[in-house]
Amino acid sequence: MKTETGLSKRSDRTALRILAAIALVSATSAPAQPADPLPSWNDTASRRRIVEFVKTVTEPGGKGFVPPAERIAVFDNDGTLWTEQPMYVQLAFALDRVKALAPQHPEWKTTAPFSAALAGDLKAVAASGEKGLLELVLATHAGMTTDEFAATAADWLSKARHPRFGRPYTETVYQPMLELLAYLRANGFKTYLVSGGGVEMIRSFSERVYGVPPEQVVGSTIATEYRVKDGVPAIVRLPKVDFVDDKAGKPVGIQKFIGRRPILAFGNSDGDFQMLEWTTAGPGPRLGLILRHDDAEREYAYDRKSPFGRLDKALDEAPGKGWQVVNMKGEWKAVFAAGP
Amino acid sequence: MKTETGLSKRSDRTALRILAAIALVSATSAPAQPADPLPSWNDTASRRRIVEFVKTVTEPGGKGFVPPAERIAVFDNDGTLWTEQPMYVQLAFALDRVKALAPQHPEWKTTAPFSAALAGDLKAVAASGEKGLLELVLATHAGMTTDEFAATAADWLSKARHPRFGRPYTETVYQPMLELLAYLRANGFKTYLVSGGGVEMIRSFSERVYGVPPEQVVGSTIATEYRVKDGVPAIVRLPKVDFVDDKAGKPVGIQKFIGRRPILAFGNSDGDFQMLEWTTAGPGPRLGLILRHDDAEREYAYDRKSPFGRLDKALDEAPGKGWQVVNMKGEWKAVFAAGP
Repeated sequence: MKTETGLSKRSDRTALRILAAIALVSATSAPAQPADPLPSWNDTASRRRIVEFVKTVTEPGGKGFVPPAERIAVFDNDGTLWTEQPMYVQLAFALDRVKALAPQHPEWKTTAPFSAALAGDLKAVAASGEKGLLELVLATHAGMTTDEFAATAADWLSKARHPRFGRPYTETVYQPMLELLAYLRANGFKTYLVSGGGVEMIRSFSERVYGVPPEQVVGSTIATEYRVKDGVPAIVRLPKVDFVDDKAGKPVGIQKFIGRRPILAFGNSDGDFQMLEWTTAGPGPRLGLILRHDDAEREYAYDRKSPFGRLDKALDEAPGKGWQVVNMKGEWKAVFAAGP
Repeated sequence: MKTETGLSKRSDRTALRILAAIALVSATSAPAQPADPLPSWNDTASRRRIVEFVKTVTEPGGKGFVPPAERIAVFDNDGTLWTEQPMYVQLAFALDRVKALAPQHPEWKTTAPFSAALAGDLKAVAASGEKGLLELVLATHAGMTTDEFAATAADWLSKARHPRFGRPYTETVYQPMLELLAYLRANGFKTYLVSGGGVEMIRSFSERVYGVPPEQVVGSTIATEYRVKDGVPAIVRLPKVDFVDDKAGKPVGIQKFIGRRPILAFGNSDGDFQMLEWTTAGPGPRLGLILRHDDAEREYAYDRKSPFGRLDKALDEAPGKGWQVVNMKGEWKAVFAAGP
């Protein structure tokens, strides 16, 4: 297969290795600025726009200069930083947890949506709608302390494998996005995740995988309660939704948790529309980016018609709003660190 | 007046200036470590315990070493970082806002608690209880965008004066605490505010006054909504409480916003009890501190009997829990940067 640059994938991989070696050598003398900070990005429109934006906001004395404290960049997680197909990772976790907890809940065998989850009938699970999915999430994400939940999530992530790629989900993160996160941080940005997913699940791996510490993760939350039992305090997760960090909830979550309007937002679906809108409507230089999944061979192609991560309205409005659409197929040299 | 060190206040002030000069000279060669990072703290038990704790958690290879990323320190605001007498600053703001908004609300003249607020009858306001105070807060803190609210709060803070000290409230912050915040940050700590007060009000001055950026402020929140009007998006504050960051709400807020358990907590009232308990019950080195207001001459003396910032249960339990009680009168050389 030839990529848009005309190089074979093998040549690309070799080129990447050389670039990585150069970066390593260069790093010895100037740690923050490797020779090419974005080696997995082809030299196409998206890369150029990103580099231009970073140059604009970091140039001392330039008219677009933004002080480091205000360089807030927000990233959606599912479908923007890692694969969200064939289903959200958190849903895969919930389905596995239903199976693990089933012996304690004999009634689940005959109660929807649990019966569908136990039968592995993903279509029926999806058909149970938002209400059904919420029931699955609450039954599997509540009723334990935050520490216990984090340990369960970390354990699952270490063992579960992506059904197509056969790798841990944490290895389905996108190499070009890891490079972009690091590039922004090297330029004084503070990088945040702003996800519709549950905040504690993401926090269990965000630092190790993305270099984003727990306190820079904004996500959906369930209600919790502080309890002291036999002198030992704990924070207990309750089966009640506290906040849904999706769609119009994303700017609300950004304001609540961060308290500043970002200057860069990167998403991939209509769930990110308002986050992009809020970010790019502010004064001064702003950058809104949308990852378009058009690469069935290396990852997935789905945009307008997927139950997970549908990209429709945001794609239509991107040109008018000045948002940059990143086409995975043509603009990324590599998708995953482990290939392809 | 003589302080516990036997020096007059004038001598103390001179000593402080000399120390500041030394710090400045020293800073030229080693910016992070002035000669004495805590010049306003007497050499008494609290100071020694703080310095010992910082030494323990920062000593590479030491058995109490804590990686910088986990050095989270949380500070209550009212009564811990600035004066909360004769009333919470946010309540003073709410009362002034009631007066400013009264022409648009003729019904307030005859409706409690607004009538009491307009008459300046603080006792009747206090007697209206939590419900009454909440009504005042919601009527004055909602119904505008977050940007508008922040501008109103900043404008008020620039004009309002503390009734006793005749200075802006932002100059009733405690000099020893500013030094402590800076000292912790110089030692790799990330300093957070965790306040029962409204998060947006505190964010409007936290960076300038405390060096704590908006994203490191945890506080009470009201519900907000994302709205787009004539193509311009805004986040609108609704007259509905979202989260109360006080008492058992403090550890809940810490987990929700920060997602890590702090290793140091500093409070001054029973409203901080659970925050101290949650912080100091964790494994490894932990430090809980309580500021005791026992200095009627330089500030206030109130602990067990104040409607604002009552310190009763936490004071009783401090010895058993190993929390360090900081006595303002004997342990602080200076209270305010501007004196006394």
